[in-house]
Amino acid sequence: MQFRDALLLPHAGDGKGIGPSGLSHCGALMTLKSDPGNFFEDFTVGDELIHATPRTVTEADAALYTGLTGSRYALYSADTFAQDCGLEGAPIDPLLAFHVVFGKTVPDISLNAVANLGYADGRFLKAVYPGDTLRAVSEVIGVKENSNGKTGVVWVRTTGFNQENEEVLTYVRWVMVNKKDTSKPAPVTVVPELPAAVRPQGLPKVEVSAAGYNFDLAGSPFGYEDYEIGEQINHVDAFTVEEAEHQIATRLYQNTAKVHFNQHAQSQTPRGKRLIYGGVAISLARSIAFNGLANAAQIIAINAGSHVNPLGSGDTVYAWSEVLDKAELGDGMGALRLRLVATKNRPCGDFPYKDPEGKYLPDVILDFDYWAAIPNRE
Amino acid sequence: MQFRDALLLPHAGDGKGIGPSGLSHCGALMTLKSDPGNFFEDFTVGDELIHATPRTVTEADAALYTGLTGSRYALYSADTFAQDCGLEGAPIDPLLAFHVVFGKTVPDISLNAVANLGYADGRFLKAVYPGDTLRAVSEVIGVKENSNGKTGVVWVRTTGFNQENEEVLTYVRWVMVNKKDTSKPAPVTVVPELPAAVRPQGLPKVEVSAAGYNFDLAGSPFGYEDYEIGEQINHVDAFTVEEAEHQIATRLYQNTAKVHFNQHAQSQTPRGKRLIYGGVAISLARSIAFNGLANAAQIIAINAGSHVNPLGSGDTVYAWSEVLDKAELGDGMGALRLRLVATKNRPCGDFPYKDPEGKYLPDVILDFDYWAAIPNRE
Amino acid sequence: MQFRDALLLPHAGDGKGIGPSGLSHCGALMTLKSDPGNFFEDFTVGDELIHATPRTVTEADAALYTGLTGSRYALYSADTFAQDCGLEGAPIDPLLAFHVVFGKTVPDISLNAVANLGYADGRFLKAVYPGDTLRAVSEVIGVKENSNGKTGVVWVRTTGFNQENEEVLTYVRWVMVNKKDTSKPAPVTVVPELPAAVRPQGLPKVEVSAAGYNFDLAGSPFGYEDYEIGEQINHVDAFTVEEAEHQIATRLYQNTAKVHFNQHAQSQTPRGKRLIYGGVAISLARSIAFNGLANAAQIIAINAGSHVNPLGSGDTVYAWSEVLDKAELGDGMGALRLRLVATKNRPCGDFPYKDPEGKYLPDVILDFDYWAAIPNRE
Repeated sequence: MQFRDALLLPHAGDGKGIGPSGLSHCGALMTLKSDPGNFFEDFTVGDELIHATPRTVTEADAALYTGLTGSRYALYSADTFAQDCGLEGAPIDPLLAFHVVFGKTVPDISLNAVANLGYADGRFLKAVYPGDTLRAVSEVIGVKENSNGKTGVVWVRTTGFNQENEEVLTYVRWVMVNKKDTSKPAPVTVVPELPAAVRPQGLPKVEVSAAGYNFDLAGSPFGYEDYEIGEQINHVDAFTVEEAEHQIATRLYQNTAKVHFNQHAQSQTPRGKRLIYGGVAISLARSIAFNGLANAAQIIAINAGSHVNPLGSGDTVYAWSEVLDKAELGDGMGALRLRLVATKNRPCGDFPYKDPEGKYLPDVILDFDYWAAIPNRE
Repeated sequence: MQFRDALLLPHAGDGKGIGPSGLSHCGALMTLKSDPGNFFEDFTVGDELIHATPRTVTEADAALYTGLTGSRYALYSADTFAQDCGLEGAPIDPLLAFHVVFGKTVPDISLNAVANLGYADGRFLKAVYPGDTLRAVSEVIGVKENSNGKTGVVWVRTTGFNQENEEVLTYVRWVMVNKKDTSKPAPVTVVPELPAAVRPQGLPKVEVSAAGYNFDLAGSPFGYEDYEIGEQINHVDAFTVEEAEHQIATRLYQNTAKVHFNQHAQSQTPRGKRLIYGGVAISLARSIAFNGLANAAQIIAINAGSHVNPLGSGDTVYAWSEVLDKAELGDGMGALRLRLVATKNRPCGDFPYKDPEGKYLPDVILDFDYWAAIPNRE
Repeated sequence: MQFRDALLLPHAGDGKGIGPSGLSHCGALMTLKSDPGNFFEDFTVGDELIHATPRTVTEADAALYTGLTGSRYALYSADTFAQDCGLEGAPIDPLLAFHVVFGKTVPDISLNAVANLGYADGRFLKAVYPGDTLRAVSEVIGVKENSNGKTGVVWVRTTGFNQENEEVLTYVRWVMVNKKDTSKPAPVTVVPELPAAVRPQGLPKVEVSAAGYNFDLAGSPFGYEDYEIGEQINHVDAFTVEEAEHQIATRLYQNTAKVHFNQHAQSQTPRGKRLIYGGVAISLARSIAFNGLANAAQIIAINAGSHVNPLGSGDTVYAWSEVLDKAELGDGMGALRLRLVATKNRPCGDFPYKDPEGKYLPDVILDFDYWAAIPNRE
């Protein structure tokens, strides 16, 4: 089904097919060729959205990602290190692949979103290498109109494919989207069942071999057996974010959400400034997490994620982690389930998180729950 | 003729050939090895200028261009998409190739320019691929001293070559340049005849095949036949420009014009701040134009271009387009002649352009007239 | 010897080997998995430090380096130019390779440094090409506790290796580092003997062939014989540095020194703002030096270097050079020993350097002494 066409031509239901809707304006033709994005009523459970702009990711994206996030995980930094682990070379950081796939979905899913509500069941299925071309497809798996009749929640499962049509990653996200025509009746509510976390037995197979892993070159002596459930790690380092940095990153991912780029419009809002794409916060926090988790380089699953307070330019990002769970993967590898918490302008030596009422502290910006593979030390 | 040498050594007319002109200063040797750039009287019709610093453009330049401009045209984003169109892979965006060639000309042509007056007869003759090395040569085709005797207009035709010495692009531009020695007599005026626009029959052959073109992945259902002459499109999106962004872009193009980089000097001018390279505005506007012209990815000719008001950091760029002409190219392809207008800090829903007296509105920054290839929908 | 492990586990001297040091905190485990860096007493003469995070440098790093520094040396810009000089393609700029190697050493050597005191005997031994993987190893060659008992000077020789375990560059640097436990006795003082400059006969073999060198494309007619000892060159151009630019560059080099990235912490210091990595200043000054030294593209040795005043965002970098010495290298090549002086917010037409008492002027930021190869003109 060509869902996109119908959306692009809301006034074209005249049987004449696709074409410009000519409207008179100052004597000139004005058309609706710009994409207004989808509104709540445009989403129907079962719809498939073919997202635009496939993207060949290259070693240039990897270098830019290093420059923009400060990533130092050896697996994604050096071909030799990755080859010693049995890979053909350094893969693309899974978060970079995630951001590229996510970016493609924005024009179709979240251009008119009020809020990005959550992620679930994210799994990284296959390594992405420089030269691979990523494209994204989403299926609408849930809709629920809010009681105010003005907005609704849409759940989609998005899958990223490489040029061989292999699935490289998949995740569910849900967003609150504005309704355009509030007089339209509410659709039948469909709320998908989602796991609180990817279960250990559902974790993707890890392609990295622990046999050739070099802890010295990775930068930390700590392996799977050195981490304990409940353990908290203050990552110490910090990055102050500049407008140019998050804009370059977000454009690199071809994420088009206006709120990240248009100061002229944002200056007319209560917030008054551009909002930084949540993926930038995730990546900065993960780079900071190197200092304490250097061997947990490879994200293999995303369990949940919330951007709990906004991040803006000039803010300094700090981060800490907590080990939520552990799982043996066999062949010398294990997985840590980690909560990654990022703050703004607040060091994390006291592990800031929520207040006694369970509300996130105002300087907490990110609560991200994921699984990362890590080799055993012995 | 080694035009450059003569320019570098204005005081070396002593028959001893090239060498440092030692001047005493505080007991040390001070030399004129820095290039002062050319002045009006240094240009003679027929001179050929071999510009310095050939540049191998790579997929890294393409990635940086995406990160700096937000380009989303599928043809330049994905090898697979380009291969389906019969190309060997994703070419370098023609505007990126243009900026690289243009950048090389700056030290020789516009270092002492008062104003960049216009472009004409620009044609993109051959696709540039990652790994190609570009170099630039210019021929002086016109000179006209102004009546004040202090400045003059110089016309040059610049051609970019690849490593096989094939012409990849060519254009004429003219600039107003300061005269250094106002006592020198005015040269014979030569004003070249230039076309108001590249004629359809003069458009370069398009290498893209329409047969394998995928409108879904390109992000818009609109083909050649859906655009009408006179049609105006508001591109909706916008980008606020930061100093770091335009400086990185302009250095990437190895464009050395001081006005883009030196705040210390600029703060002593009435404007008080750095001026953004006009090519940055063109590229941002073209990226914004994706939203409405997603299938008109390939610029094949530049008819004219004016930077009608300055753009500075913190300004937000908006854009709109008007279809000026159409031309069938055969084999399922057509060309749209488009006027691309960019504004600063002003949305383009009312298509801002000129006032009743024909003067550009103060928030219009760019008036760019070009041809782009676009496939037929059917 | 696994020096790093011992450092990471200062409290793990209980014979149980490597493992998390669990400390109770609010009922949760808090660990010392973050790397605190080394303190003065952690360095012992003869220790070898294997630095983390090998890095495959690519044409993307080269492009980013161009975008961030404005480099225009043809040898590092165009494969064709380099091939005409007998190389396989454009190598990585030696300074970029230096910054990458240097960056790796920061977590182990200078995380707790009070001051970076100097460089000596730096030699670029082998060209680095896109695709090469660099790793770094340092040997402690000197220690000297200061009389205050709170700090000490550490000398290290750092060597960068490629994936074939060939030495690509080597240099000595010395830093002043805080002592952690001031009650510990001072070590035996060892001060290495270091040359004031690399001697001509000790310069690395130059791989570039002068035979195919093209002065037109390089951008200057001046060869080895055109420079005289004592000659001073004002490089005219200038770059204003933005926070985003130096942060992206410094992260690209995977240099983690906090002072470059954390505005939240820096705002609580007397300086009040982030300090720009000295390597950024060196690279900007060298790019500016193109205008006057276009043919002296290849740095082959570093004799000395001092960052004599801090550089911050918003400052504009200018530069001038003085020819300190010359050396014939044979086969049409020579070497210039150059002093590169960079200033902030001060043009260099009067060659600003030191005051009558020999103290650096407050707007001088860099005094860098190096050898560069340059072809003979004839």
